[in-house]
Amino acid sequence: MLLCDIGNTSYHFFDGSHDYREDVSSFDPFTCKEKVYYINVNATVDAKLKACDNWIDLALHVKWENYYETMGIDRVMACEAVSTALVIDAGSAITIDLVKERKHEGGFIYPGIIAMSECYTRLSSRLEYSFNFDLDLDKMPKNSQDAITYGFLATLKAEVIRHEMPIILTGGDAHRLLKIFPEAKIDRLLLFRGMQTLIKKGEPC
Amino acid sequence: MLLCDIGNTSYHFFDGSHDYREDVSSFDPFTCKEKVYYINVNATVDAKLKACDNWIDLALHVKWENYYETMGIDRVMACEAVSTALVIDAGSAITIDLVKERKHEGGFIYPGIIAMSECYTRLSSRLEYSFNFDLDLDKMPKNSQDAITYGFLATLKAEVIRHEMPIILTGGDAHRLLKIFPEAKIDRLLLFRGMQTLIKKGEPC
Repeated sequence: MLLCDIGNTSYHFFDGSHDYREDVSSFDPFTCKEKVYYINVNATVDAKLKACDNWIDLALHVKWENYYETMGIDRVMACEAVSTALVIDAGSAITIDLVKERKHEGGFIYPGIIAMSECYTRLSSRLEYSFNFDLDLDKMPKNSQDAITYGFLATLKAEVIRHEMPIILTGGDAHRLLKIFPEAKIDRLLLFRGMQTLIKKGEPC
Repeated sequence: MLLCDIGNTSYHFFDGSHDYREDVSSFDPFTCKEKVYYINVNATVDAKLKACDNWIDLALHVKWENYYETMGIDRVMACEAVSTALVIDAGSAITIDLVKERKHEGGFIYPGIIAMSECYTRLSSRLEYSFNFDLDLDKMPKNSQDAITYGFLATLKAEVIRHEMPIILTGGDAHRLLKIFPEAKIDRLLLFRGMQTLIKKGEPC
């Protein structure tokens, strides 16, 4: 049995102990003969996967009444993995979801690092800086690079920490946000743990 | 004597009691015979203004050691206007500056409403919603429109209110942010008051 998290660029597999990636443009899911439980946010491969009998779409087995209809399946899976925490998935978007005693209490969406950087650059070429993740967010900035870094990170931090919850970080930029949330735990395989939890519940057959 | 705040689209005049606008593309500053104290962020009209003897650039009379070199002149003027407050200028960008006893203590830059809305839309067409300014920011959202609204506004609010300072709102979107900061005062002519303060200090001649 394999687990697979499919995004816009890669199939991310997990065999229970190791994870590896296959490129979306070259990998053919038909070549995989094992049973694969997957989640997918990539519309271009959706039809192909539906035609593979051994690929099982976990989105069909989620109790959606616990979430909301248009919530991304990756956010749902991250929430399935935890009991009580604020889950931050830092990818192209940063999603922040509150889970208390296995119940999703809502969440919000914030732009990811590249999206926010491009947003500032579009506002003015004078704001074309990379973010300074070593910035001391306890002091108000006095230069342009720090002023946009603070705008991006201090705002997110202030909202997140006011919930006074344990924080779990996942996603490709988790390590960068660890500088802002030093008490957080990183779990880069969190979505797979959510998939395992859902499978153990026995919904998929 | 006139005051003028020049942006990318208009010359915004203030005669001490009334304000009015002239279009940047059609207005000729040479036609104005009065003395005009101005601030300008529009590079395309800079040379023209410098050639008018009766137009006085207030940026040349700012004590820049109180601010920082690349700080926008509009932010500086807003700060000159206040004694102790958090000044929020809500335009294409939202700038937040802390002033204590007439001293600038730093500030940060956050994307404006349109910039942030476009940022979410670029992330995903599924996030193409207008922001819901009536959203209750005390509850974590459970739908996509609220999830991006909260990401935009609750983060900004959390950072701003933790400073526990009186808030002054200015700029074209001040009235929209008043919903988030109901205790704030709106002063749509704040930049002109900053210009008046600087002129009264006697620096320009």
